[in-house]
Amino acid sequence: MHDPSLVLYTDSSPNGFKATIALEEMGLPYRLEHVRIEHGEHLQPGFLALNPAGRIPVLVDHAANIVLFESAAILLYLAQLSGQLLDPAPQPRWAAITWLMYHSASMGPLLGQRVHFECFEATPNPAALKRYRSLTEGTFSVLDRQLATQPWLAGERYSIADIATFAWLHIAALVGFDFSPHRHLTRWYRQVEQRPAVQRGIRLPAPATGP
Amino acid sequence: MHDPSLVLYTDSSPNGFKATIALEEMGLPYRLEHVRIEHGEHLQPGFLALNPAGRIPVLVDHAANIVLFESAAILLYLAQLSGQLLDPAPQPRWAAITWLMYHSASMGPLLGQRVHFECFEATPNPAALKRYRSLTEGTFSVLDRQLATQPWLAGERYSIADIATFAWLHIAALVGFDFSPHRHLTRWYRQVEQRPAVQRGIRLPAPATGP
Repeated sequence: MHDPSLVLYTDSSPNGFKATIALEEMGLPYRLEHVRIEHGEHLQPGFLALNPAGRIPVLVDHAANIVLFESAAILLYLAQLSGQLLDPAPQPRWAAITWLMYHSASMGPLLGQRVHFECFEATPNPAALKRYRSLTEGTFSVLDRQLATQPWLAGERYSIADIATFAWLHIAALVGFDFSPHRHLTRWYRQVEQRPAVQRGIRLPAPATGP
Repeated sequence: MHDPSLVLYTDSSPNGFKATIALEEMGLPYRLEHVRIEHGEHLQPGFLALNPAGRIPVLVDHAANIVLFESAAILLYLAQLSGQLLDPAPQPRWAAITWLMYHSASMGPLLGQRVHFECFEATPNPAALKRYRSLTEGTFSVLDRQLATQPWLAGERYSIADIATFAWLHIAALVGFDFSPHRHLTRWYRQVEQRPAVQRGIRLPAPATGP
């Protein structure tokens, strides 16, 4: 069998899992390249030539001669390539893109800051901790209200918005952020978690182990 | 003349300017609704029904019966609607989407945190300030390298990625963040700033005044 056109450069991380889950859900052939962040491989010249920001995931589509970084861009690309997980009808399509962007620009970055101050900052910073706990709780509430009246973030169908949101919430759960009081969000989380492709995706290139 | 199909709910802010600049660049007819954040209008039930996260901008397209929030989603929608500022050729198209996402998920959120700790936090937080100064400097360096070899972020053509990135950098300049050592970024900033549509966009619904 010839080499697949798609190559995903990634490590076990919330943003990386978005791409592996999507690829597993869509059944697209791809090759996985493990970029070991703990060994600084994301800062090597070869990787920086693919993404000057030095972040995983990066997707290369050799057939189209396209290099993509930023997990949300990769999800949009894979949805177009596969014709899956992004409804072609305008209303659910733009709802999915809106909630994908809400994750990418609000929920994800705020959880990232909270993880930093909860888990990686040597000197406790109570003011920053308070700020990011409050802001991430706010995003949980927004998602919980959205999921109170419909099964998935964009409406009646599972989409790339659910994948992105789940991937970060999986890490939040792993490091002990408690979102169980948000019962619609928790119901949705359990449903996404049960999907076989999601279970495969969160173990690629290796399961996350927490800080 | 009948009411335009597009209604933009916004205030003078980095994310709001992305939408007003894009609408002005594209020449699309629209109606502006000023949501006065300082009066708490973004937390009123009528606005929360449009965006449960209570954030501007929100775009309603009455002809399509579509409600969008998150500035990046709005930019993607307007590009599709107008056929402008997002190249249809795959390589520049996905480059523009990638850099739009880099702005939305990395540069914008980090500048937002830096503005908070520099301008709005009553008690100085040196550790957080140091963190966000360093991280935003990192994004300036990434953008500077990208702009060293090509005129615009996605290559040869001005795109929605330039609009998004400019809108936040405009606020960064206004509050005194110095990015002048990044000379390619500064060259690009001056070029975007000179565009008549950009000058109109950053004054809608009113010019930003800084903190």
